Amino acid sequence: MRVLVTGACGFVGKHVLTELASTGYEVIGMDIGTPPAGLSPDHFIPANITDAAFMIQAIANLAPDACIHLAGLAFAGGGNPQTILNINLVGATNVLEAFKLAHSKARILFVSSAHVYGMKTRSTPIKEDDPLNPDTFYSIAKMAADRIFLLYAEQFGLDVMVARPQNHIGPGQSPQFAISSFARQAKAISKGAYPVIKVGNLDNRRDLTDVRDIAKAYRLLLERGQTGKPYNIASGREVRIGDVLDSLCTLAGIRPQIVRDEALYRPLDHNPILDTTRLRQDTGWEPTFPLEQTLTDILANT
Amino acid sequence: MRVLVTGACGFVGKHVLTELASTGYEVIGMDIGTPPAGLSPDHFIPANITDAAFMIQAIANLAPDACIHLAGLAFAGGGNPQTILNINLVGATNVLEAFKLAHSKARILFVSSAHVYGMKTRSTPIKEDDPLNPDTFYSIAKMAADRIFLLYAEQFGLDVMVARPQNHIGPGQSPQFAISSFARQAKAISKGAYPVIKVGNLDNRRDLTDVRDIAKAYRLLLERGQTGKPYNIASGREVRIGDVLDSLCTLAGIRPQIVRDEALYRPLDHNPILDTTRLRQDTGWEPTFPLEQTLTDILANT
Repeated sequence: MRVLVTGACGFVGKHVLTELASTGYEVIGMDIGTPPAGLSPDHFIPANITDAAFMIQAIANLAPDACIHLAGLAFAGGGNPQTILNINLVGATNVLEAFKLAHSKARILFVSSAHVYGMKTRSTPIKEDDPLNPDTFYSIAKMAADRIFLLYAEQFGLDVMVARPQNHIGPGQSPQFAISSFARQAKAISKGAYPVIKVGNLDNRRDLTDVRDIAKAYRLLLERGQTGKPYNIASGREVRIGDVLDSLCTLAGIRPQIVRDEALYRPLDHNPILDTTRLRQDTGWEPTFPLEQTLTDILANT
Repeated sequence: MRVLVTGACGFVGKHVLTELASTGYEVIGMDIGTPPAGLSPDHFIPANITDAAFMIQAIANLAPDACIHLAGLAFAGGGNPQTILNINLVGATNVLEAFKLAHSKARILFVSSAHVYGMKTRSTPIKEDDPLNPDTFYSIAKMAADRIFLLYAEQFGLDVMVARPQNHIGPGQSPQFAISSFARQAKAISKGAYPVIKVGNLDNRRDLTDVRDIAKAYRLLLERGQTGKPYNIASGREVRIGDVLDSLCTLAGIRPQIVRDEALYRPLDHNPILDTTRLRQDTGWEPTFPLEQTLTDILANT
């Protein structure tokens, strides 16, 4: 079974390639960059997903059995709203439309985001059919793409599923994300740098799932997910960011001074809790990496 | 006060130009076409809103006091999803971003759609803060733009409002829309054509507001609306499409045979009812055209 992974060179893409390759799939990576380590050039397609004509040709030629669409700007990646919309929404629709035009029967997993639910507190864990309430440019683009993918399943019978993962962390993440930034600073201090770590709001709480558990969920969804359905993905384990920093410092063997960086500081928010019953029931997925293991691996790879 | 109207050559645009000009505003039309009748070339800017760089320059040069953003593909206008997204969402964001970059204090009214609420029945009339549940490519793009405009008000302090009008009819509408199509056929029959009218589902019910009442609501919103708010616009008068056809035939003095056209037929749906309390309270708006007057004017202009 041949699986196309778009955004193969990204943080999540690399872990998805590893997950799929280690469980016996033939993996074709696609990205705007050069092939990632471990992928031979004949298993890599350099592509810009905003080029609709190219995508139509590429999908028709490749005829994959499945696709995990990860390509796009990450939440913390910046970009003006039009760029985010062009890549994360119109680009995603180009990929989907290319499958439609190829009359493809491929299973297609679109990676949306838990951010589509917005940051307002809700009284109970959020189920997939609850209202979407995105409150950033990034999450508005994700929500629109999320709905368009599900509409293609409904209207055109494409075999589409949507994943809505919570925050994920792990080896190889950009230091634009807090935990990765902490790890980088901690590692430097353990090697002799001046013992100060700059932080944003340590009181915010997050569900931090290991990226390898997320990648496993994507594989299980390709194998066992129900077509036309969105799936929440989250460990269900919410932690205070300050506690994660403490754990990282302990693991790195350092006791630095913690300094608030106003540029990183965001007000206290309420990251919504996801109900992951559907994912667990349909695929048997369970998170397997304890937080300490994740942090240890992040430090080792920093 | 100088008001920029994008989409000035469209069905609604022409009525908005008339409404604004007749109440004393200086109106600048913008459209991809040639200037509409009644607008001198020095009050018209030919533009493609998908050209972000052009829009930045045009808004900076013009420095309007207000803008009604109508430009975009209409619901029944067709287009593949990427084209709809490019024009109705990325194009709209280009306009908005151009105002932001110009540090503009202009009042900006984005014309969204009642379609953002979706077609599922709800137990009570829909208020503006109720969940959005779009179920077509058109309404997904509208919803994303709707949210982006409100986000610019919240995050960047732009003076933005959003209009969510129900279906509107009136002189000059494209025959892609049912009432206009009926009127064109009725007019032809009254002039001697073979007395058959082709129809879709006559049992669907719609709130059909006169486009001139809609245009008046847009003007009143510029004058009295609250910044950062979406506003439902609807007559509150729901009619069965078959009854509208009967009225049109009576007004045209014809008794044609009614034939179902499978290509036009859509299943029975439930167009949601909008609560327009906010619009009425903030602006004093009330619809003024009885349906028979609207139909008479449509026939006269067909």
